[in-house]
Amino acid sequence: MSMHDLIRQLREPNKAKIVLLVADGLGGLPIEPGGKTELETARTPHLDALAAEGIVGLSLPVAPGITPGSGPGHLGLFGFDPLDHQIGRGVLEALGIGVEVGPKDVAIRGNFCTIDAEGRVTDRRAGRIPTETCEKLVGMLRDAVQIDGVETLVAPVREYRLVVRFRGEGLGDNVADTDPLSTGLHTLEPKAGDAASEKTARVAAEFLRQAKQILKNERPANFLMLRGFAKFPDIATMADVYGVNAVAIAVYPMYRGLARLVGMTVVDPGKTIADQMEVAKANWGKYDFFFIHYKYTDSTGEDGNFARKVEMIEALDAEVPKLRALNPDVLIVTGDHSTPSRLRSHSFHPVPTLLWAPATVRPDLVTTFGERPCLQGGLGQFLAKDLMPLALAHAERLQKFGA
Amino acid sequence: MSMHDLIRQLREPNKAKIVLLVADGLGGLPIEPGGKTELETARTPHLDALAAEGIVGLSLPVAPGITPGSGPGHLGLFGFDPLDHQIGRGVLEALGIGVEVGPKDVAIRGNFCTIDAEGRVTDRRAGRIPTETCEKLVGMLRDAVQIDGVETLVAPVREYRLVVRFRGEGLGDNVADTDPLSTGLHTLEPKAGDAASEKTARVAAEFLRQAKQILKNERPANFLMLRGFAKFPDIATMADVYGVNAVAIAVYPMYRGLARLVGMTVVDPGKTIADQMEVAKANWGKYDFFFIHYKYTDSTGEDGNFARKVEMIEALDAEVPKLRALNPDVLIVTGDHSTPSRLRSHSFHPVPTLLWAPATVRPDLVTTFGERPCLQGGLGQFLAKDLMPLALAHAERLQKFGA
Repeated sequence: MSMHDLIRQLREPNKAKIVLLVADGLGGLPIEPGGKTELETARTPHLDALAAEGIVGLSLPVAPGITPGSGPGHLGLFGFDPLDHQIGRGVLEALGIGVEVGPKDVAIRGNFCTIDAEGRVTDRRAGRIPTETCEKLVGMLRDAVQIDGVETLVAPVREYRLVVRFRGEGLGDNVADTDPLSTGLHTLEPKAGDAASEKTARVAAEFLRQAKQILKNERPANFLMLRGFAKFPDIATMADVYGVNAVAIAVYPMYRGLARLVGMTVVDPGKTIADQMEVAKANWGKYDFFFIHYKYTDSTGEDGNFARKVEMIEALDAEVPKLRALNPDVLIVTGDHSTPSRLRSHSFHPVPTLLWAPATVRPDLVTTFGERPCLQGGLGQFLAKDLMPLALAHAERLQKFGA
Repeated sequence: MSMHDLIRQLREPNKAKIVLLVADGLGGLPIEPGGKTELETARTPHLDALAAEGIVGLSLPVAPGITPGSGPGHLGLFGFDPLDHQIGRGVLEALGIGVEVGPKDVAIRGNFCTIDAEGRVTDRRAGRIPTETCEKLVGMLRDAVQIDGVETLVAPVREYRLVVRFRGEGLGDNVADTDPLSTGLHTLEPKAGDAASEKTARVAAEFLRQAKQILKNERPANFLMLRGFAKFPDIATMADVYGVNAVAIAVYPMYRGLARLVGMTVVDPGKTIADQMEVAKANWGKYDFFFIHYKYTDSTGEDGNFARKVEMIEALDAEVPKLRALNPDVLIVTGDHSTPSRLRSHSFHPVPTLLWAPATVRPDLVTTFGERPCLQGGLGQFLAKDLMPLALAHAERLQKFGA
């Protein structure tokens, strides 16, 4: 029996409330040998109190040694094995700019490019046109493209990048990229890799034909290429598997999009973590699972700014009393992956995690929140996908298995 | 998606060098309640320094509670699930004496035995003839056996034991043993368990017919029995899965053979661990993965010689500076299983493991190498097969999974 089927069988509703606070890229590394990580350096009295009263451990987002992107990192925390549910590039790009993706959609990443009179690519990024130009060109496409049998959406991303979404019946996503990957070559025709994707390939070819016409007098971006054709992943909802009525309070569009993929309700989060806490409070009676996403522990790590990441952790810590004031039954603080500022990127290192649940937790001996203390904690090292069953158990929402 | 497919998808080449130093049977047990293990007793300043700078943990070679043989123990360390890839007895016996086994081969263990005038077995081990007699008899078989359609190889092992290898097309290995398992009975005919093994059974029957003729005037070993028919296992190479160019530096033939099974290059290791370090140095530019095997932690454990095992660990420790001098990017020290001298045998106990990787490691608080310190370490308790992905991750040879 799969874990999901087991949970479906055992779960029972109650009024317990679960909060999943995700500090993106939370885990770190010391800068100097023998030094402390960002989290160990930060002054975090409120998180330390949760660690002291609760249990801590280290989450493996996907598997040992695997560095996850945001998609796999969050799917694990939402209780889905990231290896079973891959989210295509086009879908992630669309979610990242707030373009909704549903079951009938194929989402595609686009690049504006430059072609010569013979149609050969001379610049695969169209001279990195400014975002305003991208927006103007996308507007031209939006106004003029018309394809029978599908609804077409075009949206700007940044510089030369855009998103194209086709909505309609029978659109597979097994279509090859049209980027020839080097200059001096013609762009490729969109080619279906299976029968179910023939319609998508035809639609994409027609889209490109019209786009070439619309853009022909523009410089330097007089054409575009499509890559990362991706359908909405075949994934259950958190309501279906875990029986929770979940809400996402996330400032960045990608995380709202990822939450939507697993059926969460998405609400206006405001602009800051303080706003998000207010939103959680205002919605406290309406939901029983609250996913709150905090971006700045990741972005400062990506910037390689150790001191700033420490500050962002401390800023998050200062908001924790607002969550405790809501009296959640289970409060989890973790990350979707590590983003050590020393590496300036996501990494494979396990993610410090704490689980606070006054009614059910068996405390460990750890009294502070940090990577090294987490090695001694009651959660041990665990796969991220196991956190949701643990959350339900601590919320007393899982019946006994077997007699 | 399988972990192997994931790794194939994510791996990328770089110049990082990984060393896997396997101290066979490294894990131990205290002799007295409250006492120290062999590793904890040994004075190991160099391993302790690696533990202090790196991370430690405990490797489960196959699964909790499972005592592995050398085959499964090493397959796990090489990054293959030992439960998915079983190596037949005949193949292991052949590898153990340095007989190569390839995709077209069936390897078989043989026993010289004594039969009476009616062909009934009177001694299943032929009075445990000395190895020199075994070698002489094997020479007689080698000179005289001739079977159409296959190439036959016969090699002595020790006392009454030998290895037979058939090489040819269409040789399955589902053939029953010919040992009747008690005296007073006739040896059995080799019987195929499936159609793909009919040819092997016929070849084996012909081999036994000729052998009976050749040996008929010998005493006490006037016949032989075959058991453990085994083909080359269907297993990928380390190059294919992990993208490493691996070399094995192992003094004992079985470990060279196991390395060959997963596609490692095997080089002349010299005779001692000091020789092996020289060989590693001499080959440093040619490979990016170095498997170095040290036998004496196991053989002394099997002998039940606690003090001697301690000495062998200290002897290995003294060689560690030579490895550090090569500046590997990742250095792993572990064992393929535990061999506590108290038990005089392989055991299921988790194996102390350290991983040293100055660029990427997140240090734990452990400063010595030993079974109890490893319980507090950053690697936690992990399955041996997860070590290769971790090694690649620490070598910065794995791209991010998903966006």
